[in-house]
Formats: sequence, C-alpha cells, structure tokens
Amino acid sequence: MFTILPIKGFIDQIDGFYCDGISAGLKPSGDNDLGFIYVSEPCDVQAVFTENKFQAAPLKHFLQYEENFKTNFVLINSKNANAMTGKKGIEDIDTIFSQLDFDLINPIMSSTGVIGNPLPIEKIVNGAKSFDLSSKSGENLSKAIMTTDAYSKTCMYEVKLEDGSSFKIGAVAKGAGMINPNLATMLCFICTDANIPVSDMKEALKVNSETTFNAISVDGDTSTNDTVMLLANKKSNSYEKQAFFEALRLVMHDMAMLMVADGEGAKKAVAFEVINALTKEDAQIAAKALSNSLLVKTALFGEDPNFGRIASTIGASKITCNEETLVISYNNIIVYNKGELCFDANTEAKASEVLKDDKFKVICDIGLGDKSFTAYGCDLGYKYVEINADYRT
Amino acid sequence: MFTILPIKGFIDQIDGFYCDGISAGLKPSGDNDLGFIYVSEPCDVQAVFTENKFQAAPLKHFLQYEENFKTNFVLINSKNANAMTGKKGIEDIDTIFSQLDFDLINPIMSSTGVIGNPLPIEKIVNGAKSFDLSSKSGENLSKAIMTTDAYSKTCMYEVKLEDGSSFKIGAVAKGAGMINPNLATMLCFICTDANIPVSDMKEALKVNSETTFNAISVDGDTSTNDTVMLLANKKSNSYEKQAFFEALRLVMHDMAMLMVADGEGAKKAVAFEVINALTKEDAQIAAKALSNSLLVKTALFGEDPNFGRIASTIGASKITCNEETLVISYNNIIVYNKGELCFDANTEAKASEVLKDDKFKVICDIGLGDKSFTAYGCDLGYKYVEINADYRT
Repeated sequence: MFTILPIKGFIDQIDGFYCDGISAGLKPSGDNDLGFIYVSEPCDVQAVFTENKFQAAPLKHFLQYEENFKTNFVLINSKNANAMTGKKGIEDIDTIFSQLDFDLINPIMSSTGVIGNPLPIEKIVNGAKSFDLSSKSGENLSKAIMTTDAYSKTCMYEVKLEDGSSFKIGAVAKGAGMINPNLATMLCFICTDANIPVSDMKEALKVNSETTFNAISVDGDTSTNDTVMLLANKKSNSYEKQAFFEALRLVMHDMAMLMVADGEGAKKAVAFEVINALTKEDAQIAAKALSNSLLVKTALFGEDPNFGRIASTIGASKITCNEETLVISYNNIIVYNKGELCFDANTEAKASEVLKDDKFKVICDIGLGDKSFTAYGCDLGYKYVEINADYRT
Repeated sequence: MFTILPIKGFIDQIDGFYCDGISAGLKPSGDNDLGFIYVSEPCDVQAVFTENKFQAAPLKHFLQYEENFKTNFVLINSKNANAMTGKKGIEDIDTIFSQLDFDLINPIMSSTGVIGNPLPIEKIVNGAKSFDLSSKSGENLSKAIMTTDAYSKTCMYEVKLEDGSSFKIGAVAKGAGMINPNLATMLCFICTDANIPVSDMKEALKVNSETTFNAISVDGDTSTNDTVMLLANKKSNSYEKQAFFEALRLVMHDMAMLMVADGEGAKKAVAFEVINALTKEDAQIAAKALSNSLLVKTALFGEDPNFGRIASTIGASKITCNEETLVISYNNIIVYNKGELCFDANTEAKASEVLKDDKFKVICDIGLGDKSFTAYGCDLGYKYVEINADYRT
C-alpha cells in the first residue's frame, strides 16, 4: 500500500535539486530562454530520445557519455534547437561548458527551437555565467524552456510508503501541438529523490512511455529533439517499485495531457477510445489515426458531430473492421449503430452539446474483439495555422 | 509514333457520349448537384476504388455486377456520399433506378458528400426524370459533381496514330484538399472512343495510378467513395497501346494536379522531389511524408523557407538517410548542404523569393542511391480550417 499526493511547488521542492531560468537574449521578447537543473551531488540520469533519424546535437552529446553516467548539471535553452548543425553543433556544447566556472560533472545540454541555425554561444555563456546554482526557482525554469507553449507545464507528487518513508517526484516540461504529424519538440525533465536502482529507471521510463507520451504522438514520428529525462539523486532512502512506477506514470500522464490541451491554439482535449478491436495493434492504429486526422480535428474545432469523418478515418486505417459491428459515440451519445441509421435531429442536437464541451470522449466500439487503446488529441483551428505559419519570427 | 493534342470541350466531344447536370435540390444553394453520363450503346467499364475498409454503397452496388459488365448510364450526385448507410444504401440505388423510365443497362451510381445520411431518393428521382439523354453539356455535369471544389475539373485530348486513325479521351473529376490525410473524396470519370480491349483498360488504370492519383494521396488512406472510372465505347476503331497508356497518364495527371492546386484554400502547388534515395520505397515514403506534413504545409503557407521542418520530416519518416549526405533546395536555391551551414541571410532572401511563387519544387537529395519519387502537395492556411470546420452546413 502506498499513497501518491499532489503537492505544491516545482522540482526545487525536492531535496538536493536546484534550478532557475533567465533571459539570455535568445528570445527577442526578453522572456526567459535559458535555464538549468543543478544537483548537489552527481546523480543517476536516464533518458528516452526521439526516434527521428536526425537526432539533434544535444542528444548526440548525451550519448557520447558512457552508459549509466552520473551528472550534476543540465543546461536548457529555447529558441534554437541545435539540430541539423553537424559536428559543429556538438563541439559548440563542449565550448559552452568549457567556458563556465562551475564544478560540472558530465554536464548535459538540452535545446528546443528553430532547426538549422548555429547556437548563439556567446549569449548562452554570458547568460549561464550569471546563474546562481543555489537558486530554487522552478517557475523561472519552466518559463525558460517554453517555445509556442501557451503556459508552463509542471507537476509535483509526494509518495508515502507503508514503512513510513516517503519520496518526491516532479517534472517540468514543454511541448504544444506535438500531436503527430506536427513534429513540434517535447522536452520533459523528471526529478526524484527516490532511492531507485538504475535498472528500474530504464524500465520505468520505457513502460510508461506507451500510455503517456506515445499515446499523444505516434512512435517515431517525432521531432529532432524530443527528450524525456529522469534524474534520481536517491536522497530520500525511500523506494518501492510499484509505487514509483505508478507515480512516474502519473507525472508523465500529467505532462502529456497538458501538452495535448496546449495544442497550439487547441480549445478541446479529446480522448479517442477505440474498444473491442480484434488486436491491441488495431486498437492503437485506429485511435492514433483518429487523433491525427486533419478532417476529424477540424470537425471538432467546428463542433460538428459529423461521424462520417470518424468512420472514414477508421476505415482508412485499414484495421480489421466492419460497418455492421461498429458503434460510434460522443461520450454516451450513440451517433452510429451498426449500420442502422440513428443520427436523427434529436441525436444530432445531443451530440452537438457534447462537442461544445472542452473535454470529451470519442468512443469507437469495433465490436470484433476485446482489445482497447486510448489516444489523446485536440481540435485544430485558425490559431494553429497562425502559430505555425509564423513560427520563426 | 503518335501525337496527343489537347482539344477544347468536354467529354461530350466524344462520339456516343452524352452528359448533363442539373439542380435536384440537394444543395441548398441551388447549384447543380445531379448529373449523368449516357452512352448510346452499352460500353465497357472498369474502375479502381478506394482502399478504405468502409466502401460506400455505390461502390458495393457496382461490384455486385458480374466482372467485365457493360453499362450505358452513370448517375452522379453530390452533397450526399451514401456511405455508412448499410444495406439500405444499396437498396436505395436500385429503388432510384427502378423509378426511371430510361432504357438502362446495368446502371451505375456514384456519390460524394456527407457520410452517414440516407440518400434523398425522391429529390434524386425527380431530378433524374428531367434528364434529356441526348444532351451534350459536360460543363453542367462538371459543376454537378463539385463539393468543396473551387472550380470544375475537366480535360480533353485527341490522339493521332501513325496509321492516320485517331481517338479521343477526356475526363471530368471532382476533388479538393484530398491530400492525405484529408480523406476528401475524389471522383474521376474518364471517357474514350478508343478501341481498347478490356484487359488493357484494367492494366492502364492500375499502371497510371501510382504516379498520378496515388502521388497526391497515400495509397489506401482514402475516403469511402474514391473512384476512378474508365468508360470505353470503342466507336473510333482506333487504338495503339502505348499511345493510349500515355494519353490516359496525361488525363489522370491533369486531374490530379487540378485537385492539388484546389487544395481547399491552397494557394501554392508544390512538387516534393526526393532524389537519390537508397530505394524507390524510401523515396516514396519521404516524398509523401513531406506532402502530408502539417508543419511543412503551414510553413509554405507562411512563405517561411525554414528547412528545419523539411529535414525533421524526412528524419521522422525513418527512411535510410544521413545528415552528412542530405542536400535540401527550393528550386535551385540550396538551403541545407550536408551539414555545412549555408543558410545565410542572402540564401534565405533568395529562398523566400522562391516561396512567394504559387508553384515551386522542394528538392531533397538523400545522396545515398539513385531512386526518386515526386509527390505533390499544397500549403495549408486559414481557408482550409474554415472549409472543414463548417463542411456540413
């Protein structure tokens, strides 16, 4: 038995973790654009990275360290992704760290922003030199890593075990409109003082990715910089595997849901539940196809209960399915029932009501088996076009 | 040797083909919404249909006829797709034909519009009863089959063979914004008086699909109603296989390009050329990924020469590729060159000029082999959202 309680504050609530964010002049707006996480003693770090074939320089730099290395410093900048920048991109990271006077052990860099421009080394070095490593300002950090995010994304939990011990786990993340096929970058830094073995860190990250970040972004169809990083300093001396896995799942789910809801102008967070499919793979393919369909997303934006686009998308996904077993509902309002027309004016009016909400379910009962998967998506409106047509400026 | 000449007019220029379009009251605007193609003597017909698992009722109705059947009548309506309408959808088609007094041989129906509503049988029957089967009004027909199309789509060619004989081939089509993953319906009716054997009709449709309609829409990720139909009445007594295949390719390419350029508010028709890939499949995957990427499409709309989104999309497509062999250009302006930064202010200015055009190429040289594929796409702007958020109204 264990309890997981949400608590106030940022990752700096965890003993031994320090952080801050400043403006280093990368964003012309003068908003925060450079931040750090500092750990008082070198701690274990594990990460899962993008499956994009063109991994950004910071990812390659991380992978140059030996397996299971320890670190005490993560430097994070927004506005420049340091991707498609060749060997120079990796060298630039070492140049930056070589010019800092802090006592850094295997320092890590993480970047997000425009692809294909060299890092503004001088601005970053000058900014980083002003860091106070004893700062505890998670809010400043959360703002420094934002790009098109409408709001910062953080969460904190305390986990109490049966033996009376407890540990903390929390995260700071950025990511908006990252629903496939958008390719916007997602960064997520998770910190904990749980006394977790490295092997469990790896397993926990992997296990929890499928139902959280991978449920909002098709595996592999990701940006050059996507990173989920777990830092564990073990200061609490408290650990229980099941409790930790569940707490990590909560943290990753929270961050994923905040990203969906912040889908670059999105107003609606939608759960696409595909149930009773023949295979797990079928359920996953259909659910992700729905969450990625432009026609479905624009229909949701228009609050149009047009189930034809839902049906057509399932059919186009080529999973095993049949018009005569399929049932489609918005929450509990059935709009398509096994080929018997049920979409009368009354039903349409009720379905329209559901779609006016800012959070609802689209449930597709394939009616051929017992496998299910839920993907999360959002609507797509004018704001999305505005943000992405002018992203670099 | 043969010559293929574009000629004026519509499919009614072909001996033995008659057509017209009227308003049957399906479109509240009073625009044409019902049309027909009538052939004076039953002629051969072959079709390729959507790979969507939920084929619309008219497709199932067609497939109920025996293989290589002949027909003399195609009835086409817009505004209602007669899809996801169960057995009733198929029965409705027979009901309509049973109420018409024309001498119909294996009549075919084709529909496009909203999915999931029963056909308005009475309106269609009343409309069809007013048809004059001796009409030659291709223009009326071309308008009757439009849905979100900004303009009607037709073409006509005359093919002259070395023996002095000649045949005609032409098409009428509808489709806009059908670039995957949009799923909007594409209908294309091709008529010819070439003296073509049925086996060649099948082969020609199949061979030419890959580089035309399938280059603008990922195979299989199609709507419930997509149809390409070839009607051949053999009246000309003229035929030469190579000439016919080339003429059919031209007709299908013309129609596909008109659909791309009419991408629901699209202002730019873009050719995505992936060259020197390791395999043909790689070239195809990457080219289609580019033409389908929301981030690429919105960047093109914003006339932003941000090559990062191009690179990221290629990397995310998981084809065999390498930052150190990749070269990206807009027309002849190189913006990324094997990891050596070349995107200076001068280059960016030149690239921006290219993107202001309404037609240009994005060329990605993978640099690993000699296989190529070109996919066609368009930009995506506010108009797309407007059209698709309000489609049913």
